[in-house]
Amino acid sequence: MAASGPVKVMRGPHEATRKVRFGHALEVGGDFVVIAGPCALESQDQVDQASNAVKASGGHALRGGAFKPRTSPYSFQGLGEPGLMLLSEAGRRLRLPIVSEIMDAAQLPMMLDTVDVLQVGARNMQNFALLRALSKVERPVLLKRGFGATIDEWLLAAEYLLDGGNDQVVLCERGIRSFDTTLRNTLDLAGMAYVKSKVKLPVLVDPSHATGMSGLVTPMALAAAAAGADGLLIEVHHSPATAMCDGPQALTPEAFDQLMRGVSAVLNATGRRMAGDKPLAAVGGAR
Amino acid sequence: MAASGPVKVMRGPHEATRKVRFGHALEVGGDFVVIAGPCALESQDQVDQASNAVKASGGHALRGGAFKPRTSPYSFQGLGEPGLMLLSEAGRRLRLPIVSEIMDAAQLPMMLDTVDVLQVGARNMQNFALLRALSKVERPVLLKRGFGATIDEWLLAAEYLLDGGNDQVVLCERGIRSFDTTLRNTLDLAGMAYVKSKVKLPVLVDPSHATGMSGLVTPMALAAAAAGADGLLIEVHHSPATAMCDGPQALTPEAFDQLMRGVSAVLNATGRRMAGDKPLAAVGGAR
Amino acid sequence: MAASGPVKVMRGPHEATRKVRFGHALEVGGDFVVIAGPCALESQDQVDQASNAVKASGGHALRGGAFKPRTSPYSFQGLGEPGLMLLSEAGRRLRLPIVSEIMDAAQLPMMLDTVDVLQVGARNMQNFALLRALSKVERPVLLKRGFGATIDEWLLAAEYLLDGGNDQVVLCERGIRSFDTTLRNTLDLAGMAYVKSKVKLPVLVDPSHATGMSGLVTPMALAAAAAGADGLLIEVHHSPATAMCDGPQALTPEAFDQLMRGVSAVLNATGRRMAGDKPLAAVGGAR
Amino acid sequence: MAASGPVKVMRGPHEATRKVRFGHALEVGGDFVVIAGPCALESQDQVDQASNAVKASGGHALRGGAFKPRTSPYSFQGLGEPGLMLLSEAGRRLRLPIVSEIMDAAQLPMMLDTVDVLQVGARNMQNFALLRALSKVERPVLLKRGFGATIDEWLLAAEYLLDGGNDQVVLCERGIRSFDTTLRNTLDLAGMAYVKSKVKLPVLVDPSHATGMSGLVTPMALAAAAAGADGLLIEVHHSPATAMCDGPQALTPEAFDQLMRGVSAVLNATGRRMAGDKPLAAVGGAR
Repeated sequence: MAASGPVKVMRGPHEATRKVRFGHALEVGGDFVVIAGPCALESQDQVDQASNAVKASGGHALRGGAFKPRTSPYSFQGLGEPGLMLLSEAGRRLRLPIVSEIMDAAQLPMMLDTVDVLQVGARNMQNFALLRALSKVERPVLLKRGFGATIDEWLLAAEYLLDGGNDQVVLCERGIRSFDTTLRNTLDLAGMAYVKSKVKLPVLVDPSHATGMSGLVTPMALAAAAAGADGLLIEVHHSPATAMCDGPQALTPEAFDQLMRGVSAVLNATGRRMAGDKPLAAVGGAR
Repeated sequence: MAASGPVKVMRGPHEATRKVRFGHALEVGGDFVVIAGPCALESQDQVDQASNAVKASGGHALRGGAFKPRTSPYSFQGLGEPGLMLLSEAGRRLRLPIVSEIMDAAQLPMMLDTVDVLQVGARNMQNFALLRALSKVERPVLLKRGFGATIDEWLLAAEYLLDGGNDQVVLCERGIRSFDTTLRNTLDLAGMAYVKSKVKLPVLVDPSHATGMSGLVTPMALAAAAAGADGLLIEVHHSPATAMCDGPQALTPEAFDQLMRGVSAVLNATGRRMAGDKPLAAVGGAR
Repeated sequence: MAASGPVKVMRGPHEATRKVRFGHALEVGGDFVVIAGPCALESQDQVDQASNAVKASGGHALRGGAFKPRTSPYSFQGLGEPGLMLLSEAGRRLRLPIVSEIMDAAQLPMMLDTVDVLQVGARNMQNFALLRALSKVERPVLLKRGFGATIDEWLLAAEYLLDGGNDQVVLCERGIRSFDTTLRNTLDLAGMAYVKSKVKLPVLVDPSHATGMSGLVTPMALAAAAAGADGLLIEVHHSPATAMCDGPQALTPEAFDQLMRGVSAVLNATGRRMAGDKPLAAVGGAR
Repeated sequence: MAASGPVKVMRGPHEATRKVRFGHALEVGGDFVVIAGPCALESQDQVDQASNAVKASGGHALRGGAFKPRTSPYSFQGLGEPGLMLLSEAGRRLRLPIVSEIMDAAQLPMMLDTVDVLQVGARNMQNFALLRALSKVERPVLLKRGFGATIDEWLLAAEYLLDGGNDQVVLCERGIRSFDTTLRNTLDLAGMAYVKSKVKLPVLVDPSHATGMSGLVTPMALAAAAAGADGLLIEVHHSPATAMCDGPQALTPEAFDQLMRGVSAVLNATGRRMAGDKPLAAVGGAR
């Protein structure tokens, strides 16, 4: 790495994790946060059902893709701007910040008008033109790790943002490629814990994309909480079987509710808590 | 996989995890177990200090290598049979079953005289001559996943044991190879959870070899407990800095003690418990 | 892949490889072509020396990066537009088409004014906004495989271009990630041969980025020619030791000249020939 | 690597490739050699047809597995000793040395009675008990690279043999695991060329196992010859469709004959020759 290694993302001695504000009220990097919603925004009804479920179970922010980076040009590419409006309205109604993926710098003006957090997806982690554009705006960025990216490359992509002037950056581990293709990706939870120990930015985990199987989302969410992640990205859909994108990895509202309870309990067991939960003393947490 | 896929290791509908007995008293596959000790057996003093520490903190079995499969012929190759005697004596003194790696079928008679559990290491996972020999003995086998092995290959290696007549098999995930070499290996915790959901054999996790960094062992141990593993393999050394093998990943007795407390709390938070702990009702665990 | 797999890039029964024209005179997809030049454009002198060397040894097109997608924001990022001018002048002077990487759709107008072939780099292979923009222009695209991309993902990225209306597409294998990091990447030559057998687009090989070591560039160039590739991308620099980017993998003019002779001989031995070489009969080629 | 890195396998300055004798007459490490035959030995008729074809097309040694390390216990495991006898008789009849895989040290006495070269398969590359046993015999060893093994690990496995006293060692690259599973493995031809440049042992390439597709075997054989390999391992079967093991990657006698001609031409084009061919001057080879 030498002279060209990451500098500004690194945690100094005794330096605390940076708090990054999503919207007006949510702080990421302190208590544990859960950002949830559908993979792709599909319709008013779908967005409302998913958003209501996220809110009802204590989720802290809404996620949903309007512009979808699909491997094939023949797959559903997202609703585009109208989809963003649906998510924006749900966010306003439920008083939850919204997170959505930006695919190109040209979308910035419109995205800045609607979303609270700009997500950079795995496929664009090294789209340096996009990173430079995002480094110049005053809006938090959620930077997913590329599925073919080393930890150093991931941190240096974040360094582009900080070096350019935007220090409101949150990282998200979402699984990497390995020779074993039984699951969609290989969740690199130890890599996440390593990054937490070296970097001052908050680090989230996305067990939905990492595993691609709804039955593994909750075990990996619990594991991420136990391992020290700052929060989660979870896909929720009222009818996974009919979802237009990534249905097999989406949780139903019921499963999401169980996940939230389980994660709270694990956090308390490790001396932490879910954002919005009562202080630990009140629940008798350890450590 | 078709006709040559795994059959006998698979979990039937509503079938519980198989209980595998280690020595006289320990059951693996029910309450959570922790097998700990030094990577390589080095001396009477080292074995005693590590073993006492494991016992004092509530560990359930001792591990230690007498025959070490080292990448280089110029690295310490283990004490051999005298090392095994040291471990055996420690086990008898502390009333803990002992686990040690077998590298070749020719070692079987001696190993059967001394160890309670025969470990097959990652590099020998597809040493089919060894697996066939082990399938004919009445002694439990702890089968580690090869770092280059798919989940199917791992299960089929276990199938060799069951098909040959030995159904006392415990699996252990210890990290796989990926393009990211920041850490020693990439711990495939989601793969472990997937295997748990498909297979009736108990599944352990070895966060020491998976990460190669002592600072990541406890976070990954907590994660493994949260994700549903049946137990852990942990390397403990009273002086990691002077260990003859894999010192950077060994926990001190103090760190191991903290790990045990943390894991207990996480287990309770998910409605499970550490073997030997009081029943959950007594500690007010959730679920 | 099912309904969303690649269609338009696939080779029909008895369909020949598509010929793609680079500039006025060069055809890719028939006789073997070599595109060479410096990794990054640095100065008038450097561009001239490399370009003259490429021309003198029979290279068919010039390559050089003006906008460099560097992993670290602290590495040399390229000369930008002035660099492009240097390459453009060299191309005009030597009557060779020029190839340069485009990093963002916003650069399109300027690039269309200067370069004959628009290169999409490995890090942008799934930058779908860029691919869509490129699908609408009448200019050939050289699409490199992402180092974390499967063959299917690569072909589907090309499918975005063809589906959008641009069928002047040339593929380039440049090495993928694997667990072995001895070399910069793992050149997937068998993957190249597989793609050649399935797809109608020309496929090039870039042994410079794939290996990262100048001593391996010629062996892999010969191998690529023997395995049926349609051409090569080669980095040439008059002083690799002082290059501002990727010096260790650059060939000197002398080494490049040897490569060209060696490749010609291997092509003739397999019944093919280097573009511009005399017809096979004249050199007594085999098959 | 430091103190425990490979030493005895490394090539000294100006040191030539070691010549390793297979049987009485064949030398590996000088002119190019081709070792071919069926994956698994099945019957007298099958062994004879394959062996005759190998001899007729100029192959230099026979290969065939009697003890097959199969992923599943339910796959055909090989004929065992009777299979070895069939291969041995074919070798004697055709005056070709024979190569077969040894899976366990216990098979050594029998193998020493029948085979000229002891092959260690990919799955046993780090079976150190086997390597130590083989280091004590006077018989050449063909050491395949493990599909999950780094180059360093491969060289250190060879170092076990040399350090133990057996310097008659030939290496064989046969493909490694990567995230792309389109083909059976990813042939690491650049890794082969790197090893050739560092190590004094001969290095062969096995394109049959590396690709798993007969249509890619010849392109990769030509590529291996062009890249400087010392020889090939090729699977040949008179009826691939009915082969009991790995039929899809086997060449018919006709395809094998074409491969041999093509490889000869490529060797000549690079100033080398096939063992047994006329001297280069007679065929007008280049360089």
